[in-house]
Parts: sequence; C-alpha cells; structure tokens
Amino acid sequence: MRKLPEKTIERLSQYRRVLLICVSKNKQHIFSHELAGMLHLTPVQVRRDIMLIGYSGTLRQGYEIKEMIELIGNILDSSEGLKTCVVGLGNLGRAMISYFNGKRTKLTIVAAFDINPEKVNRIYAGVPCYHIDMLNKMIRSENISIGIMTVPGDEVARVTESMVLSGIKGLLNYTPTPVNVPNHVYLQEYDMITSLEKIAYFVKRGNNEE
Amino acid sequence: MRKLPEKTIERLSQYRRVLLICVSKNKQHIFSHELAGMLHLTPVQVRRDIMLIGYSGTLRQGYEIKEMIELIGNILDSSEGLKTCVVGLGNLGRAMISYFNGKRTKLTIVAAFDINPEKVNRIYAGVPCYHIDMLNKMIRSENISIGIMTVPGDEVARVTESMVLSGIKGLLNYTPTPVNVPNHVYLQEYDMITSLEKIAYFVKRGNNEE
Repeated sequence: MRKLPEKTIERLSQYRRVLLICVSKNKQHIFSHELAGMLHLTPVQVRRDIMLIGYSGTLRQGYEIKEMIELIGNILDSSEGLKTCVVGLGNLGRAMISYFNGKRTKLTIVAAFDINPEKVNRIYAGVPCYHIDMLNKMIRSENISIGIMTVPGDEVARVTESMVLSGIKGLLNYTPTPVNVPNHVYLQEYDMITSLEKIAYFVKRGNNEE
Repeated sequence: MRKLPEKTIERLSQYRRVLLICVSKNKQHIFSHELAGMLHLTPVQVRRDIMLIGYSGTLRQGYEIKEMIELIGNILDSSEGLKTCVVGLGNLGRAMISYFNGKRTKLTIVAAFDINPEKVNRIYAGVPCYHIDMLNKMIRSENISIGIMTVPGDEVARVTESMVLSGIKGLLNYTPTPVNVPNHVYLQEYDMITSLEKIAYFVKRGNNEE
C-alpha cells in the first residue's frame, strides 16, 4: 500500500482511539455517522477513509468494531513494535508516560532521561530514568526510534543533535523552541500556547458568528 | 478585519513565539526566509501572512521584530485579556500551568480545579486550586472564558457539560475522550497518542523515501 497522507493517518489514529473506547463499553458495531459524530467529521469522510483501508461494513449493522481496530492496526503499527523515549522528566514528561504507557502494544516508552539526581536511576510508572549522558548509548542499545522532547528551551538544540546522532528516526518536540532535523527524521512540533491562542482568537471573534 | 482561517492564526502564534525567542537574544530584525526556516515553512507563505496583517519589512533589513510582535498581538489578543482555567491538576494540568503562566500578558490561567483534597485550596505555581464543585461559581464570578480539560476519561462528559453550562466559550480537550459542545463554543481536541502514532507510521514507512 502506498504511503498515506498525514491527515488520513491522524484520522485513522482517532478512529482507533474512539473504537477502543467503544470496545471497553462492550459495543460491537458502529455506523459511519456515529463515528463521524464523535469526531466532528462528516460521514462521507469516514466512509472514504474506511474504504481506503480496504474495509466495508454492512448496511444493517455498520462496521464490526474489533475487525476495524485490527485493520487500522495493520496500517499504523509496526509488526515488531517501535520503542520511544522521553527526554526531560518534568510534569509533561511524566504526564506522557503515565498517560501513554500500556495503551498501545506496538508502541512503548522504554526509557526516560533527565539530569536531576533525584530522578536519575529511578523508575517512573514502569519506565527507568537514566542520566542524559546515557542518551546515545541507550538509544543505540535499545534500538529506540522515536524521541519525545520536553526539556527546557536552552537545552533543546543540544538534545536534538544528540538524538539525531544516536540514530533517532522520529521526534516529537513539545518545547516552544523550534528544532531542525535532517530530512530522514520525521518531526512533529506541538506547542500548547498555539492551541490556546487559537482558541482565544476565535473566542474573541465570536465563534461561528461570521 | 474579517475572521482569519485557523491555519493562519496558528502560524501567527508560531511567528510570535519564535520572534519572542529572538527578542530574548537581542535580535532586532529578521528576514522572511529566516522565519520560514525556523518554522519549516516557505518564505512565500511567511510573506503572504505578514502582508495579511498589514505589515511590510524593508528589503535591506527585513522585518522589525518588536513591531511585528505588536501587530500580531493586535490580531491574536483581546485588549482586555482572556481568562483560562485548568480542570484536572494531574501531571498534565500542572505542566500547562508551569509552562504557560507568565508567558503571555493577555491570556492567563486564573484557576485550577480538582477533587483531590491534597490539591484543593492550595496554590500551584501561582494558581489557586478549587474543588470541582466550585467550577460553575468561579467561571461566572471570574469571567473565565476558556477551559483546559485534563480530567480522567470517565469524568469528561460531566465536566464538559458543567463548563458549557457555566458559560465557557472555548475548550481545549487534552483527554482521549472526544466531547460534544454547542456551536457557540470553540473546541480544540489534542491527543498525544495521535501525534505519536503519526510519527510511528512515518518512521515505519521510512520518512521522505517516497
């Protein structure tokens, strides 16, 4: 299958997320319009995406939830699984670990890094925290392919360079400092202030008024 | 000025963020291609956005940074400022507060809410934490217009309803549970798992190979 666009991948991840919630509530089937409503999408969009992954439900019952979760997994997940690390074990780093770990079988946080002696060599929510000097060694020996960065602004450039040199292939930058990575590294940057400022703008302008 | 599209607002917020970093480094002018490079955009895109806000730099020196920050502020900020609250003072809620507060003058977190007796009636990083039963009263009396939600999944629906009834106008949902709000409330949902799964997909497929 050819590489799908970012937006499609995002929606597939969102479908799986709400389908997993449905499973936990013992729901077995779902219609495209239900799924669309939960995610503020159009039913047409949902049906198009689901066709893209080679699935079609039945008119009477809709989609079979577990089957759909499996098909989405075939697209999103690596069969052997991928390892992730968190660099910077502050509030946000800890939030990532406690929120994420155990939620997906094919994507795990296997290490955290910090410089604070009170955090180093401890285990946080099942994840060992190493001194940041161990970054290179651990990324190589554990074959960690994705880094989540939550360090203070003045350390961002150095830590990024160190992760790239260690062979990281994907980077999620949660700091407000933009980073540069070589082309072969897939970068996502997210800054909470931008989300908040966007909301503030539309609140100020009066949402849906114009 | 007419209401600008979401993507433009996002970029204006990002420009301001990196321009503020430049100011802290005593940089006074910047060229569109520098700004574009820092944010992985094209110089054409940057110039188009900046023209949209009614600004033009000089060919020789580029944009005057402080002036540009002020013009962006005129668009993004409310003159009287907007108040925000965090509902759920776990790791993520605390990360939001310590990261965000003090960074913008026109957007402040004025209250946090939780049910944990060890958190209620304490002050975290300058922000008082109230019991969640006070939500309605505080949102009204403090005129809080934006809510940031980081509560556990099974409380999401109830807390959302309570915030909407209290008159909130914008909601940032950081939980994995999708919410429904009336049309007049501007909603942003962000789930870290989706960001990570997107990176994992492109790492698996080999970024920039096809």
